[in-house]
Amino acid sequence: MAAEQEAEGRAAARPLLSDLYQVTMALGYWRAGRARDPADFELFFRRCPFGGAFALAAGLRDCVRFLRTFRLRDGDVQFLASVLPPDTEPAFFEHLLALDCSEVTLRALPEGSLAFPGVPLLQVSGPLLVVQLLETPLLCLVSYARWDPGLPGEDWAPWGGAWTSGEWGPSGLIATNAARLRLIAGPEKRLLEFGLRRAQGPDGGLTASTYSYLGGFDASSNMLAGQLRGVPVAGTMAHSFITSFSGTEVPPDPMLAPAADQGPRVDLAACVEAWLERVCAHLGLGAQEPHRGERAAFVAYALAFPRAFNGLLDTYSVQRSGLPNFLAVALALGQLGYRAVGVRLDSGDLLQQAQEIRRLFRTISAQFQVPWLESVPIAVSNDIDEEELARLAQEGSEVNVIGIGTSVVTCPRQPSLGCVYKLVSVGGQPRMKLTEDPEKQTLPGSKAAFRLLGPDGSLLLDVLQLAEEPPPQAGQELRVWPRGAQESCTVRPAHVEPLLRLWVQQGQLCEPLPSLAESRAFAQLSLSRLSPAHRRLEQPALYQVALSEKLQALVDRLSARGPL
Amino acid sequence: MAAEQEAEGRAAARPLLSDLYQVTMALGYWRAGRARDPADFELFFRRCPFGGAFALAAGLRDCVRFLRTFRLRDGDVQFLASVLPPDTEPAFFEHLLALDCSEVTLRALPEGSLAFPGVPLLQVSGPLLVVQLLETPLLCLVSYARWDPGLPGEDWAPWGGAWTSGEWGPSGLIATNAARLRLIAGPEKRLLEFGLRRAQGPDGGLTASTYSYLGGFDASSNMLAGQLRGVPVAGTMAHSFITSFSGTEVPPDPMLAPAADQGPRVDLAACVEAWLERVCAHLGLGAQEPHRGERAAFVAYALAFPRAFNGLLDTYSVQRSGLPNFLAVALALGQLGYRAVGVRLDSGDLLQQAQEIRRLFRTISAQFQVPWLESVPIAVSNDIDEEELARLAQEGSEVNVIGIGTSVVTCPRQPSLGCVYKLVSVGGQPRMKLTEDPEKQTLPGSKAAFRLLGPDGSLLLDVLQLAEEPPPQAGQELRVWPRGAQESCTVRPAHVEPLLRLWVQQGQLCEPLPSLAESRAFAQLSLSRLSPAHRRLEQPALYQVALSEKLQALVDRLSARGPL
Repeated sequence: MAAEQEAEGRAAARPLLSDLYQVTMALGYWRAGRARDPADFELFFRRCPFGGAFALAAGLRDCVRFLRTFRLRDGDVQFLASVLPPDTEPAFFEHLLALDCSEVTLRALPEGSLAFPGVPLLQVSGPLLVVQLLETPLLCLVSYARWDPGLPGEDWAPWGGAWTSGEWGPSGLIATNAARLRLIAGPEKRLLEFGLRRAQGPDGGLTASTYSYLGGFDASSNMLAGQLRGVPVAGTMAHSFITSFSGTEVPPDPMLAPAADQGPRVDLAACVEAWLERVCAHLGLGAQEPHRGERAAFVAYALAFPRAFNGLLDTYSVQRSGLPNFLAVALALGQLGYRAVGVRLDSGDLLQQAQEIRRLFRTISAQFQVPWLESVPIAVSNDIDEEELARLAQEGSEVNVIGIGTSVVTCPRQPSLGCVYKLVSVGGQPRMKLTEDPEKQTLPGSKAAFRLLGPDGSLLLDVLQLAEEPPPQAGQELRVWPRGAQESCTVRPAHVEPLLRLWVQQGQLCEPLPSLAESRAFAQLSLSRLSPAHRRLEQPALYQVALSEKLQALVDRLSARGPL
Repeated sequence: MAAEQEAEGRAAARPLLSDLYQVTMALGYWRAGRARDPADFELFFRRCPFGGAFALAAGLRDCVRFLRTFRLRDGDVQFLASVLPPDTEPAFFEHLLALDCSEVTLRALPEGSLAFPGVPLLQVSGPLLVVQLLETPLLCLVSYARWDPGLPGEDWAPWGGAWTSGEWGPSGLIATNAARLRLIAGPEKRLLEFGLRRAQGPDGGLTASTYSYLGGFDASSNMLAGQLRGVPVAGTMAHSFITSFSGTEVPPDPMLAPAADQGPRVDLAACVEAWLERVCAHLGLGAQEPHRGERAAFVAYALAFPRAFNGLLDTYSVQRSGLPNFLAVALALGQLGYRAVGVRLDSGDLLQQAQEIRRLFRTISAQFQVPWLESVPIAVSNDIDEEELARLAQEGSEVNVIGIGTSVVTCPRQPSLGCVYKLVSVGGQPRMKLTEDPEKQTLPGSKAAFRLLGPDGSLLLDVLQLAEEPPPQAGQELRVWPRGAQESCTVRPAHVEPLLRLWVQQGQLCEPLPSLAESRAFAQLSLSRLSPAHRRLEQPALYQVALSEKLQALVDRLSARGPL
């Protein structure tokens, strides 16, 4: 595994996965003698995704790994020389070849934190030329990051390899999307992520699986997420498995030993035929109606997985074929001491079919005295979105397991988080962009961020202030300017939490990063502290982010100065 | 470069980037003695993306490369053993370790072809267990493939390494999306793809850049797409470059030699200040109004790129700062024989500002007798979608260059193409899935596909028929069943084109794959042959796909048999 990850790191180096203008600007800075001017950038988003009032921060581990390994190689610099002016000084390319992040400092929200508009997800400080070059990759990583558990804290090494970018995908966006789906489903339903085939390639697939788990899903179909990230994996069969059987096939070994390993082996196929007669009689179906090939497929699957038999019911007809075939196999297995673990529906009205199937399980369970049958989990899938999920999760639903693909992975309601990375200070002086759109103005200056809480631990608001200001004090009244408001207001927090933690100082990792499971638990805890009005998915109350008086004064001063 | 690509291939191997159920089914097939049964799968989509009537096929090269290198490694099989039942036979894992695609045959639409619902993009034939395992990765590759030009035809080698998956991203979807944007923009506007920071990670980013170029864009900001794929790259400066300058900086060398390299070097900053006076006088602005820092940034950029000076105008105020500063620098450069190459707007009403800027360029051009100035290209960006693009491309628009990010890369109108991969035949016998949704039924049997054309080369319809049927003949009447219609109809094609080409036979590449540039040209040619009614982006006429009489009869027979 270590060798594999080493190879992964070595090979996936992509120092030029960035916009050309980062390099043209780098040349501009260098020619102006400003490459090493100390600069601060902030990475944030302007609006919460999906019309909600919150997002989850994710992607930090990727950023840390990226910083650790950022380095341009000879071939990269040769390519740059081919697109920059032919008379560009060789000393500039030498400067590029020597670059690393050993002078870069990174503060960030911990993975799984609640994040709100304008509050920095990342603060990046260091020499102007380097931290400018980091823009595109960091945006790529935070909007759509990969999770790589192959970098424990103690593994932190100085600037060895090239930038490793094995695979990434939507992080903050996916985690937030998954958290919404979990809120809709409630805590009891088992949520499975099936979206690999709809993800934007391996990066997207691996990260979608990882971050939907972080956001609250239970498992993924994606084996690589299991292998590399430790995400629990799940999966049984597709329709092709069932249609591949005609029923004329002769299994090489149809014999199955009882679960307790005592007693003789039994011809499962023959046993299933006997049960089919009884089931069909109970259902009032002709025993010839259920599809032979489907039954042969179920028997084949049961022989391979007697302790994990699961039936996909809708290949031909749920009522007239899938269900009786499933029941015959499940009852035959039951006779040998095995218990079927589930059924799956992938078409039609999923909620209504689940009710009908549960009713049938109950009558069959009573009829044949197999009590475990009535609680066999019912799984459903088929392009389930937020609306359909709400229907499937309603009171009284008999659906137990919900597989979601496209709508968790592609985030169709908003396929991009729209993060930006803005210069806020150079040489200790605050900088601000005004533009023709007020919404695109930036907040100047190096900042600190705090979350103010009420006596019961509920979230009141987030405050941004200048880094040099003293932090807000619990129990003390504070005057702040909510963003977008015309007037200031006062707030007296019972608790104050600093939001941004120092993770990397001058290139050195300051504390170990939490594990995926820890971040997953932290995300659920964070969400539980958000008030229902802010947690609501449709038309929520907007969570307030406010500026300190000093920061507001700086904004006013720099805006009023207008174009000067 | 060769070493880099070798490392890339070695490290990016991801044999488990697939759904767990592929492996549980594999065990089921193997236990049933069916692992080597000959099987045919087809990969297709059910509906065209974005409400249009066409899609572009893309991703073939990736599929070929994937097939070439598909192999499970020891570590992968060890992981599988950890998730499969503990009593799974060792012989099954040995079977997995020995798997490759040396018995797989692949037919496909060429890259850049027009593709329609139900017509196979890929036909994959081979041993049942292997072609089943290929499902998830092939769906990932075709819906969202990567382009890797590092595999020329002659480089085709037998089943050496592991499955290499360096980076992928949306292929067919992105190419189709880019083609739509090109149709809206018309042939004259220069279209730049700026979407890397909004892509789903490096995979998504690299492929978005590659396939938006294939679909009709002119260049990308993505340096890696330039380095690895040969996509033309473009880029100048961000707002951070401009806000980083206050105007108090002292450039180490403000002197610039004339373009013709004759005559003394000139202090560019001083020359710019002189021009600023004249420009401001012309504009009726105080010479103190334009932002000093912005001007210093423009001068710094001009010193680095005197032959490619380009101004981003909206950092503070276009009219009162960006424009006069740009003009002063452009005129100073002009005095030295250099010509500015463009301006960019990133906020506000882009169309209206472009008109105003062009008018001003014309008056300044006349006033100071610099004819080249009036035609300096105007570039715009800022979340441009199809609607805004149509506005910017309207008759009389002064916009020359349009940068598009999010909306080309994330395909917000439909973030997934929704391809499926279905078993159509096993052991020479056709197979069909019925399900509870008629739309999810499959078309049984190994098929051939033809495009029927009129005398003028226009597209009439596509016909699917059984592989064993003789192909349609030009000039001969043919009876077909249009999909979804209740009745058959006749058609007499003037020309007949077979759609599916044999690319890989029993693991061997049959012909070299076209280059990216060739596929790009083929895509534009394909689109030009589509009638305006089908090419229309909103509410187009649906293009007909029809079944031969024999195929229709097979569908009827297998459907009528119902659940049996």
